[in-house]
Amino acid sequence: MGGETRDILTLWREGSRVKMIDQRLLPHRFEIMTLNDHRETAHAIKDMTTRGAGAVGCAAGYAMAQAAQEAASLPADKFSAYMAEAAETVRRTRPTAVNLFHAVERCMDAAVGGSVAARMKKVVKEADKIAADDLESSKLIGEHGARLIGDGYRVLTHCNAGALAFIDQGTALSPIRVARKLGRRVFVWVDETRPRSQGARLTAWELEMEEIPYALIVDNAAGYYMRRGEVDMVIVGADRVAVNGDVANKVGTYEKAVVAKENRVPFYVAAPGMTFDRTTPTGDDIEIEERSPEEVNRVWGLDADGEYRWVQVPLEGTPARNPGFDVTPAHYITGFITEKGVIGPPYEVNIPKTFKA
Amino acid sequence: MGGETRDILTLWREGSRVKMIDQRLLPHRFEIMTLNDHRETAHAIKDMTTRGAGAVGCAAGYAMAQAAQEAASLPADKFSAYMAEAAETVRRTRPTAVNLFHAVERCMDAAVGGSVAARMKKVVKEADKIAADDLESSKLIGEHGARLIGDGYRVLTHCNAGALAFIDQGTALSPIRVARKLGRRVFVWVDETRPRSQGARLTAWELEMEEIPYALIVDNAAGYYMRRGEVDMVIVGADRVAVNGDVANKVGTYEKAVVAKENRVPFYVAAPGMTFDRTTPTGDDIEIEERSPEEVNRVWGLDADGEYRWVQVPLEGTPARNPGFDVTPAHYITGFITEKGVIGPPYEVNIPKTFKA
Repeated sequence: MGGETRDILTLWREGSRVKMIDQRLLPHRFEIMTLNDHRETAHAIKDMTTRGAGAVGCAAGYAMAQAAQEAASLPADKFSAYMAEAAETVRRTRPTAVNLFHAVERCMDAAVGGSVAARMKKVVKEADKIAADDLESSKLIGEHGARLIGDGYRVLTHCNAGALAFIDQGTALSPIRVARKLGRRVFVWVDETRPRSQGARLTAWELEMEEIPYALIVDNAAGYYMRRGEVDMVIVGADRVAVNGDVANKVGTYEKAVVAKENRVPFYVAAPGMTFDRTTPTGDDIEIEERSPEEVNRVWGLDADGEYRWVQVPLEGTPARNPGFDVTPAHYITGFITEKGVIGPPYEVNIPKTFKA
Repeated sequence: MGGETRDILTLWREGSRVKMIDQRLLPHRFEIMTLNDHRETAHAIKDMTTRGAGAVGCAAGYAMAQAAQEAASLPADKFSAYMAEAAETVRRTRPTAVNLFHAVERCMDAAVGGSVAARMKKVVKEADKIAADDLESSKLIGEHGARLIGDGYRVLTHCNAGALAFIDQGTALSPIRVARKLGRRVFVWVDETRPRSQGARLTAWELEMEEIPYALIVDNAAGYYMRRGEVDMVIVGADRVAVNGDVANKVGTYEKAVVAKENRVPFYVAAPGMTFDRTTPTGDDIEIEERSPEEVNRVWGLDADGEYRWVQVPLEGTPARNPGFDVTPAHYITGFITEKGVIGPPYEVNIPKTFKA
């Protein structure tokens, strides 16, 4: 990240502790939270202290590393039981982002064989590798994706798939960062991304820090600028990609994809291999998290007196529905920007080919 | 309107004063504002004390009636000059809703011929007729539109084209009101409609008052429910309809229309003849109002202490763009619900035929 926070990762491990930027407070406060055990880390995923596909995956891995350290003095059978219970705790935090499930699986695969001490070390090593892979993927996604961004491009993005959604650099914003470093002029349209306003709070903040030109818009205005020919491409992240190329991502992504196709605006999804799920045949098989109506009815921000407050917009108790994600069918997607390069259709052929075991 | 406010119109005239519900304070406070002269009424249009195509048209008419009364003791040439200046003041308030321009035109046409006293009376009479026509149109739109709403229908609406957008009853919500009175079960999906949240603040409030079942959703979620087959039709209002059937309406309408078509969800625009503009050939000829970035960056509501506050969501000074409206091309529109019945395509033939002079 840029500016004063350039050398800070989104989250990291210090022994048996996990540290992370408290993303609920951004952009108004920059605070690092310390999570002392795997339950605290799981809770930090659930309450969105950290969020974003990659960050959630890394946090899940670190939570498993914490669990392994917590159980290191137990006998083998108790160690296994403790790890299984920790895995369940982490899996129950958020249902949609597959990185989380992959991270837990990788750590559980590492938690077998050898002495308890050896197993603990393997789990910790695997968790660290998940974070290292995340960093490497973001870097490569930036390099591959930057080739798609011409000089003077105006790129629309939805939600935050930037550095804050991963360990650093991000997916959707990574190609933009690289294109800028290569000297190309890039402008970013930032959807505010209601209800949690990750665009307004996180993406705008990241772009501000790195001095990349941008404008914040309400989600409703994206189609307006696409129809006027003022959007050259769309890049979004993903929480899960099905085998057939259907994508679950932040609610609203589907609308942007449909309107982009209607206006012949290329629509790219930037995601690492960890986000592609071999066990999900199509988008219809992805569980969509329904979150609290309070997120729709209340908005958090800084008031004129410098106090952080929630304000209620409609009447108290207004019935609201709040799906956190939606599914964009594969045929709206121009390509996937991954660490292995850009994948085009037919996805049911090219995705398995790219990520073969 | 329902509940305690059942007998209150959105705005009305009392001699040379105009009274209106202050819509900026809803749903948290219900206050009636008094506008003492045409400049105050014009300002109330500009700052959105009243808003919505019909209400803005009626307020413009009343402002002209106020101007005529203010100028009633002037000689004929000064009366004309005063009216011309008042017309200009009113026209300059908001550029997109054509009802405003039509209302000014109707009053200016009434402001010629005969004595100054006679002219004044004609202007006042015309302003009252604009309001009476608005009431009648809303009623007929309800009756024609209700025929399209089957039992058990789930109707999505964007922004507020309800009673508050007109003198009473409204356009998009009027068919829903009538269908309910006819005993049909109707459920309404209410887009919150950022940035000014007219869906959350006004439409949800109207439906709550009338005990019509509804759920508030963020604008991003409309496509999610359409794709799941949980939306049977969309009804929105309009700020201006071009000769070819292109529609200017609240920003976001275009996205909903594109996604509705993609999902074969019928998309209706409910609007009175006053909203159809013979002088605008296509949507590209409609001026789109760009409003303050503050509307994007700040949200108004009630805090936990019962105080009304603005909160800043992104960093102070975040660059934002804020088009108030967008244009939906005619080919996305299933039909127009008007006081003369439902108009289907080809619009360039059927609109002029329906509203011939």
